[in-house]
Amino acid sequence: MISVNILGYGNVGKHLSQALLELSGVELQEVYNRSLPTEVREDVAFIDTITDLKPADITILTVKDDAIGSVSKAIPYEGNLVVHTSGSMPMSKLDAKNRRGVFYPLQSFSKGSEIDFHTIPICIEAEDKRDLTLLRLLGEKLSKSVQEISSEERKKLHLAATWVNNFTNHIFHLAANYLDENGLSFDLLKPLILETARKIQEIHPSAAQTGPAIRRDSATLQNHLNQMSDPQLKEIYKLLTESIQNINK
Amino acid sequence: MISVNILGYGNVGKHLSQALLELSGVELQEVYNRSLPTEVREDVAFIDTITDLKPADITILTVKDDAIGSVSKAIPYEGNLVVHTSGSMPMSKLDAKNRRGVFYPLQSFSKGSEIDFHTIPICIEAEDKRDLTLLRLLGEKLSKSVQEISSEERKKLHLAATWVNNFTNHIFHLAANYLDENGLSFDLLKPLILETARKIQEIHPSAAQTGPAIRRDSATLQNHLNQMSDPQLKEIYKLLTESIQNINK
Repeated sequence: MISVNILGYGNVGKHLSQALLELSGVELQEVYNRSLPTEVREDVAFIDTITDLKPADITILTVKDDAIGSVSKAIPYEGNLVVHTSGSMPMSKLDAKNRRGVFYPLQSFSKGSEIDFHTIPICIEAEDKRDLTLLRLLGEKLSKSVQEISSEERKKLHLAATWVNNFTNHIFHLAANYLDENGLSFDLLKPLILETARKIQEIHPSAAQTGPAIRRDSATLQNHLNQMSDPQLKEIYKLLTESIQNINK
Repeated sequence: MISVNILGYGNVGKHLSQALLELSGVELQEVYNRSLPTEVREDVAFIDTITDLKPADITILTVKDDAIGSVSKAIPYEGNLVVHTSGSMPMSKLDAKNRRGVFYPLQSFSKGSEIDFHTIPICIEAEDKRDLTLLRLLGEKLSKSVQEISSEERKKLHLAATWVNNFTNHIFHLAANYLDENGLSFDLLKPLILETARKIQEIHPSAAQTGPAIRRDSATLQNHLNQMSDPQLKEIYKLLTESIQNINK
């Protein structure tokens, strides 16, 4: 039985707690949050006083990046395995009084949206070899993809994740606003968006690229530019078109 | 029984022919292509001489945008319904000797990738009211979403489709190259990409946005910039970050 404490009960903390509760061989021992959650749960032992926390095999911080240092310092025990779940923070952000590691699920967690951990890559790192084995054991109970990733690599992975999640979603947002301004429904684009993401599960994005930029179809490109009025929208359109043409030279 | 001729046997022509063959109440009468396809099919009457074409209830052009004018002119009959399938071309690109219309499936068609027409929005337009009814009838046999969209609206829709398909795929490509250069596998991002697309099927992109740009987390933004060396990549990162912050002011 692996005992786990979770510190922080935001999106990652909630989703992870729920997933751990459903595993066999794992005991969700205590969940700490600054304030007790309003939801009443019989199956979770919530605490809001960190000094009350009892040692567990793995203590997982799901707090905000800038709280990793202070919360890990406030843990009342020493010499146990403590990991954070951040994509962008090095393992060294954790206070050194405990054995340190990282347990980073590479996914975007939102309130209300169900998450299937089974398909989420879990990136693990630890100072101690045995801790790495323990993190892999826990990871493999949750997911079919557990990867050993260093802090340096994880930083790069997090940057790439920002591109494919934040920037992609922003492009959806820009398109939704543009359609809205023109009295057209964003719903019309949803199947295309899903297919665009589905396609690169099978073929490399370089092989999936279509459209006027890669065809160097200057009539359509100019036509598109004429249909936009917002200067920043035009600027993004031009820069991405140029970048498509550069990468496919 | 609705009889249909298809002119052009590229990606759209192939996918559409296949889908029409599977419908009841629709006869795929003839498929014209400049050159006969190498594949042998008993169930499709291929021709490569456009003057041999016999009139059908609906003649669907799936040829390239710049061939719509000439191919529609070369059709040997007059006064029948002829439609094109282009997102960016107005209905008026078709030769006026036939009754004109548009039958635009809003999806990205690739070789080898199976297409489920049932979920694809089909945008229809016609000069004649009865033709519009006929196009709707055919469209609803194929898809649950048939929309009447004018040439002017379709142009805007096509621009928005370019954003969410071409630009999104390009961002995947940039991220894949970046990971590749750093010895990391693009496979790690695939579940996140799928989830990003899946999420906006349910919630508006404005509600789905997360990450350092919207949080105005300047430390992480700077950290990300430091990890890129390509000037164009940095420029895109800065511009999209600025745009996220502008749209969420």
